[in-house]
Amino acid sequence: TGFNLSVYLSACPCLPVCLYQGSKLWGGRFVGDTDPIMEKFNASIAYDKRMWDADIRGSKAYAKALEKAKLVTAEEKDNILHGMDQIHDEWAKGVFEVKPGDEDIHTANERRLKELIGEPAGKLHTGRSRNDQVVTDMRLWLRDAISILKGNSLQLITTMVERAAVEIDVLFPGYTHMQRAQPIRWSHWILSHAVALSRDVEQLQEINRRVNVLPLGSGAIAGTPFNIDREMLRQELAFDDISINSMDATGQRDFIAEFLFWASLCLTHLSKMAEDLMLYSTKEFSFLTLSDAYSTGSSLMPQKKNADSLELIRSKAGRVFGRCAGFLMTLKGLPSTYNKDLQEDKEAMFDCFDTVHAVLQVTTGVVSTLKINPSVMEAALSPDMLATDLAYYLVRKGVPFRDAHGISGKAVFLAESKSIPLNQLTVEDLRTASPLFSSDVSAVWDYSSSVEQYSAPGGTAKSSVAAQVEYMRTWLKKQVQ
Amino acid sequence: TGFNLSVYLSACPCLPVCLYQGSKLWGGRFVGDTDPIMEKFNASIAYDKRMWDADIRGSKAYAKALEKAKLVTAEEKDNILHGMDQIHDEWAKGVFEVKPGDEDIHTANERRLKELIGEPAGKLHTGRSRNDQVVTDMRLWLRDAISILKGNSLQLITTMVERAAVEIDVLFPGYTHMQRAQPIRWSHWILSHAVALSRDVEQLQEINRRVNVLPLGSGAIAGTPFNIDREMLRQELAFDDISINSMDATGQRDFIAEFLFWASLCLTHLSKMAEDLMLYSTKEFSFLTLSDAYSTGSSLMPQKKNADSLELIRSKAGRVFGRCAGFLMTLKGLPSTYNKDLQEDKEAMFDCFDTVHAVLQVTTGVVSTLKINPSVMEAALSPDMLATDLAYYLVRKGVPFRDAHGISGKAVFLAESKSIPLNQLTVEDLRTASPLFSSDVSAVWDYSSSVEQYSAPGGTAKSSVAAQVEYMRTWLKKQVQ
Amino acid sequence: TGFNLSVYLSACPCLPVCLYQGSKLWGGRFVGDTDPIMEKFNASIAYDKRMWDADIRGSKAYAKALEKAKLVTAEEKDNILHGMDQIHDEWAKGVFEVKPGDEDIHTANERRLKELIGEPAGKLHTGRSRNDQVVTDMRLWLRDAISILKGNSLQLITTMVERAAVEIDVLFPGYTHMQRAQPIRWSHWILSHAVALSRDVEQLQEINRRVNVLPLGSGAIAGTPFNIDREMLRQELAFDDISINSMDATGQRDFIAEFLFWASLCLTHLSKMAEDLMLYSTKEFSFLTLSDAYSTGSSLMPQKKNADSLELIRSKAGRVFGRCAGFLMTLKGLPSTYNKDLQEDKEAMFDCFDTVHAVLQVTTGVVSTLKINPSVMEAALSPDMLATDLAYYLVRKGVPFRDAHGISGKAVFLAESKSIPLNQLTVEDLRTASPLFSSDVSAVWDYSSSVEQYSAPGGTAKSSVAAQVEYMRTWLKKQVQ
Amino acid sequence: TGFNLSVYLSACPCLPVCLYQGSKLWGGRFVGDTDPIMEKFNASIAYDKRMWDADIRGSKAYAKALEKAKLVTAEEKDNILHGMDQIHDEWAKGVFEVKPGDEDIHTANERRLKELIGEPAGKLHTGRSRNDQVVTDMRLWLRDAISILKGNSLQLITTMVERAAVEIDVLFPGYTHMQRAQPIRWSHWILSHAVALSRDVEQLQEINRRVNVLPLGSGAIAGTPFNIDREMLRQELAFDDISINSMDATGQRDFIAEFLFWASLCLTHLSKMAEDLMLYSTKEFSFLTLSDAYSTGSSLMPQKKNADSLELIRSKAGRVFGRCAGFLMTLKGLPSTYNKDLQEDKEAMFDCFDTVHAVLQVTTGVVSTLKINPSVMEAALSPDMLATDLAYYLVRKGVPFRDAHGISGKAVFLAESKSIPLNQLTVEDLRTASPLFSSDVSAVWDYSSSVEQYSAPGGTAKSSVAAQVEYMRTWLKKQVQ
Repeated sequence: TGFNLSVYLSACPCLPVCLYQGSKLWGGRFVGDTDPIMEKFNASIAYDKRMWDADIRGSKAYAKALEKAKLVTAEEKDNILHGMDQIHDEWAKGVFEVKPGDEDIHTANERRLKELIGEPAGKLHTGRSRNDQVVTDMRLWLRDAISILKGNSLQLITTMVERAAVEIDVLFPGYTHMQRAQPIRWSHWILSHAVALSRDVEQLQEINRRVNVLPLGSGAIAGTPFNIDREMLRQELAFDDISINSMDATGQRDFIAEFLFWASLCLTHLSKMAEDLMLYSTKEFSFLTLSDAYSTGSSLMPQKKNADSLELIRSKAGRVFGRCAGFLMTLKGLPSTYNKDLQEDKEAMFDCFDTVHAVLQVTTGVVSTLKINPSVMEAALSPDMLATDLAYYLVRKGVPFRDAHGISGKAVFLAESKSIPLNQLTVEDLRTASPLFSSDVSAVWDYSSSVEQYSAPGGTAKSSVAAQVEYMRTWLKKQVQ
Repeated sequence: TGFNLSVYLSACPCLPVCLYQGSKLWGGRFVGDTDPIMEKFNASIAYDKRMWDADIRGSKAYAKALEKAKLVTAEEKDNILHGMDQIHDEWAKGVFEVKPGDEDIHTANERRLKELIGEPAGKLHTGRSRNDQVVTDMRLWLRDAISILKGNSLQLITTMVERAAVEIDVLFPGYTHMQRAQPIRWSHWILSHAVALSRDVEQLQEINRRVNVLPLGSGAIAGTPFNIDREMLRQELAFDDISINSMDATGQRDFIAEFLFWASLCLTHLSKMAEDLMLYSTKEFSFLTLSDAYSTGSSLMPQKKNADSLELIRSKAGRVFGRCAGFLMTLKGLPSTYNKDLQEDKEAMFDCFDTVHAVLQVTTGVVSTLKINPSVMEAALSPDMLATDLAYYLVRKGVPFRDAHGISGKAVFLAESKSIPLNQLTVEDLRTASPLFSSDVSAVWDYSSSVEQYSAPGGTAKSSVAAQVEYMRTWLKKQVQ
Repeated sequence: TGFNLSVYLSACPCLPVCLYQGSKLWGGRFVGDTDPIMEKFNASIAYDKRMWDADIRGSKAYAKALEKAKLVTAEEKDNILHGMDQIHDEWAKGVFEVKPGDEDIHTANERRLKELIGEPAGKLHTGRSRNDQVVTDMRLWLRDAISILKGNSLQLITTMVERAAVEIDVLFPGYTHMQRAQPIRWSHWILSHAVALSRDVEQLQEINRRVNVLPLGSGAIAGTPFNIDREMLRQELAFDDISINSMDATGQRDFIAEFLFWASLCLTHLSKMAEDLMLYSTKEFSFLTLSDAYSTGSSLMPQKKNADSLELIRSKAGRVFGRCAGFLMTLKGLPSTYNKDLQEDKEAMFDCFDTVHAVLQVTTGVVSTLKINPSVMEAALSPDMLATDLAYYLVRKGVPFRDAHGISGKAVFLAESKSIPLNQLTVEDLRTASPLFSSDVSAVWDYSSSVEQYSAPGGTAKSSVAAQVEYMRTWLKKQVQ
Repeated sequence: TGFNLSVYLSACPCLPVCLYQGSKLWGGRFVGDTDPIMEKFNASIAYDKRMWDADIRGSKAYAKALEKAKLVTAEEKDNILHGMDQIHDEWAKGVFEVKPGDEDIHTANERRLKELIGEPAGKLHTGRSRNDQVVTDMRLWLRDAISILKGNSLQLITTMVERAAVEIDVLFPGYTHMQRAQPIRWSHWILSHAVALSRDVEQLQEINRRVNVLPLGSGAIAGTPFNIDREMLRQELAFDDISINSMDATGQRDFIAEFLFWASLCLTHLSKMAEDLMLYSTKEFSFLTLSDAYSTGSSLMPQKKNADSLELIRSKAGRVFGRCAGFLMTLKGLPSTYNKDLQEDKEAMFDCFDTVHAVLQVTTGVVSTLKINPSVMEAALSPDMLATDLAYYLVRKGVPFRDAHGISGKAVFLAESKSIPLNQLTVEDLRTASPLFSSDVSAVWDYSSSVEQYSAPGGTAKSSVAAQVEYMRTWLKKQVQ
């Protein structure tokens, strides 16, 4: 009749006793009612206590709905509200005491309420389940977190846009495939990253619309059986909408998955910018210098100044995506409604918020304090970067681009053979590639006029970059209205 | 002066010759100008040819812009358009011949144009780069793909909503933690999945807004130097917007990353539904039977009927998320602008589209043809699932829920001790748990009236489920307008 | 003269002041020398202090090597060792005080050493870098962690094997595709999971061989310039080998990546077992009952007993794989040698250890305490599960298996049409499918003799399962020698 | 009476007809017996035909075992073997015709066998299931693939080691954090990557031990019921071992998961080397030049020479890890034994093999043909890279390293203030930092003698690097024995 540990222990004399009576005293562990490792494994209070404020807000709103449904009296409601305010104070002051048995924030707060106000505390959970309670808490918490991250993002974008406005006249090499491609404005580079971040902000707001939906009143699975006024709850808690289906409301964590992916894409953007900046701050490029506030030294090499801030920024893309990957994998193949697997949602959410929150601020610091070296940047422009302009010279004389591209390529080869820069080729040299070259070709070798060609929207001409700055300023204004 | 293979070959007599002259004849491979493995490794035509139509559409629009910019004559433009139409026909008829050297679809189409119309073909690429061309093609292609997936999704949702409308009176056990929880309507379950899919559709449309932006006219990195009218290009190609910054436009693949994640979340939803359906179609549950069209047999066991369709649906969530994970990892830490690493974008995009496209259709087939067994479903309802109702009975008599929950728990324990169903306890039995029980408790043991309690929005009462059906019908109508 | 914040602030009057002077008072943040957010972002002491013991062990061994190299005197060495022992005591007693500026465990321990012994502390880092120090610490720490996990795994496997030995006579349905396939022994099922875990143990030992390699003496990148005896260090710290190349030694974290993946595959195994057990513990299957110690109740539904332990086990596969995915993504595309990105290694390592450590113990608890319901399990065997045996009956009479499979399939269909179990078909019924059926077919309908057919190695016959038990016992013995 | 499509179609007049009768003619799709989309979704022949040879080998061995078990006669066995040889020829010549209904390679080969030899073909599957057949095929296929990849890896390592031997005298800057750290040998850098790859080879061999295990004879789940001699099968197919448990054998894909992760880690190594090489081949570093065979041009910019090969190598780490992530996610939470989800294993395996196969060969090509620019490399060494040596100068005079580090740091600062290189400081200048400096400090400023300090194992001194070369040569010899 059932499996008896002692039977197999004696059946297996060969195994060292220490396996069973080692550090964990395993043999005796499950004799009692509970397994302490299981208890710890199951509990979430260590991290979900972070939602104490959201949990209290949700319970206060619910108490009002209970009164409206005549499930508590006005007096009981007031007692609950008052008790909850006291609990709020305790948490705010850091004196709330988590006790054994407080497996999660909901249990802790309700346990404390009972201590403070007695019997009416037992009515608070009427028609509510932790299944709809926890997801209400998470949505309240994440809504605030998103608002903070939006602010951090806007601050970073603002810094970038204004820096681009100030340094619009600095030219430097644009790279593709990490090879010098064409001269561009430094501000054009800055704005390319700012524009990516502006998409992140827009996506964050879309996610927020799906976060800001009230699940409370969904119960454990079937809905709420009493006259709980969900519309009133929505208003109390300032949600935009009410969840449509109680099974979906309690069992889905799409808004978390979306947020984790958002964090991943946002930090992938910043990993790209960090990679550029690391490159530009190598000795070999020397385009810019990071502020000491964002650099560190070496324990061994006295001369080292490392761009640790940028490396950390780059690394965090992996970290947050790991959270996203882990959570998606946890979700895969789960049956519907609430399963304990969903408990993985909170640490992932907190960690991604904290990481993005720090990264955005550090990036703002890095970007606003780094010093560029305009003379080095401009000195890095080389005549071969105007080979396309040389082809365009011919296009303007009627040569089809494909042919012009080939002729310019020949000129590049010729210059390389002669070990001279492209612009040192004589008109005679150039004529060996095409008879259309004449002395006016000298006008090609001017980086400043080269960039001014790119005046179509999105290009690197001054007018175009200035327009991008204005576009972004207008966009920013709209975001903070 | 450089590294010479022959030196090290002789320096290392110990190594078997076969390493160098084995199946790959490696030693001789790189003597010539090109390494055939590198050539194949570099080429994308094997898969990017799938964008032939988008590439042609883009080039035709670009030819018109070139004419407006006076870079081609009206006649040249007409030749280009006509040539492109011929190429279109060749692809459509499956007779386009890919030749060696056609490393990608852009090269192939331009090479063919040259063959067909001669010189003017060489002007088509003026001011354009493959960097802005390829991303234009991808956006055109994905826009169409998204439209198809939206259609597939709506078809599936419609099937589910209408099935829910028809079968609204069927009750069965609602499960949480895979354990029987409370009686619910079968339609409530269907709608819980339909609602999740409707979020997918909404998210897909948001992504589409970011997909539907014109990058053409961004050149390789710096923009376009001629009078290319990007607004005209936008109108020709029916994009909603124009990209803001040329470096961002050519170097970002956020819209791909977003699409890959969308596919992952959408299929995670379907993996959840598939898991439920697999459970329900086990012998032990027997709630439903899949159509033979979506089942397969065993090569060994004659009696087997396996729900292969559901298992495949479940598995594809992993597949597409793998594509998303792989692409994000590829993006991480890349420097800005175009890097060849981005070439990983296309296979991922195609595979995720194909997979989701098939999964949505197969799921529609599965859902519309499965047969439910209402009598088995209702027979699976058991009195213990009304333990919450028993607690609510007491709540309605003024007992705080926490206490009522405890009393009901005692009743459950009592019934278990007596090995009888919960509803077989006599009023006397129940009174040992609480004196408030009286003969009217018998009204609790009715599944039909139990579900009717949950009439708040989102609940499982008939009125509430019917309202969900109407809500979804209205939503569906809006989507197809 | 660089970028000046005040310039752009005044240039942009439109932006609300709150952006700069909001909750973070960003404007003033980087006025001073350090950015506190950067400082916190950069520091690892919060988690790497967990390696205090490994750090001390490494430093003590290094002090001895310094003495041998005559870089410290015998007395200085003794002072260092003594100081380190004091620091060890402080950590062990929980009284070590982390101070501001202690950015990591190495800095903290060295700072404290200086306080305790003065000048000689400044010699300890001679020729050492944090680059080789940290990876030495990690290898020491992980080596111990692996040893613990091996013990946990063996304990779990032992529990499973011995349970399999005891319950070898219980038959129940084997499932493929979640559908009843063939009768098998319950012990056969247990062993299928134990065997998977034994592969995990073997893989863990292989990883350990790559973990247990000494990197100390690699310096920051180039090696160690003094007469540091690396072989002596290896012996002191009980490593198996010495790293081959200093750049690789300080810049690689393969052993971490391997460990994270090991954790992922191991927990994927347990997610599979958990899924089976969850299925078997549904009301519908009722094959087994979890101990209360590993179950929890519902805050709403008094009758609920949820298998939370199993759900948590299942979910953790996602969690640890997320860590693996995140770390691999962080590694991708990093340049060689030490980059700060590698700092992501530690939290991933700790979290995966903690998670697997808990999961293995909880699983052992679950498996050793669950109660099976043999009568329900055997009652779930149904005659259609012997359809393969029916085919084999014909095979034994000379019918090719493909034909026999078809004939048995017809019999299954016939029984379904008549709504009777397969074994209720009369010989006459069966003869409509094949004339080879005769009265001896009745011997087919015996589950006990059915399983006994599978006596080849790996099969479900009693002899074969018993052989598997013996195989595993022998294997276990080898592991603990 | 089930769910009827026509009912809900009429119930929903609002929905446009096109939803049902659009491009997919969905309404009619499932009227017939099969859904063509499902059929295609279910079939694996498009890719698993790649295992045709393994499938034939497995079936030939199985035919022999059937004869031994007296389930086929010697003549029937010969017919089967002969038929299989014919099928082998058809595949080898590319004339095997896949027919509708051939859903996988097993079905295709058996169908063809039936056509060729008639009745005995029907006996081949006796006691076998596709469950044990497919995993046997995969193990045979992967064993060969691993052997090829091992060869590719050894070829690459050999190339690297011999190049390191030849170019051992070239010095260049070693970088940490992408900043110049200390002078090192170029060969030291090469070997750092070769050593990482040697770990990959070792791990691959460990995986191979787990791949090379015979599952055949496990049937669908319960084992094989006839006298199939599994030991004979093992010998015939040259496996090292026999699987222990039939449920595990047919339901586990650990060896695939391990292989996918191996591919990920191996390509992560190469992404690191590619990143270094890309950096070194920028204009700004100019340490080396890639062969034209591994570079490509730009469609727009005539001067561009892009290191596409390196970018592709870097990108593939993401691709293969995506396959690994996808497959792990698919495995997570599956119940035990065979589920159709496992069908995701093959495309992942093939794609990872193909990718790593190409990457290893291309990398070998890149590494063996690139030209280094030793004069540029040595010119990039700068006196500040000897700041550690300056500290060591003081250490050798008895200054504790911590203090020496600080003094050297002061010297660095002094040189920066004076805008002169560190080695231009006079002894008087240096004495302001420490009185211990004297004229012998000039000996510090020699890169060649600096590197020679690092003569401990793993260091960058010539003797140490030469020892690494010898170590690797010895290791390579062992691998090909």
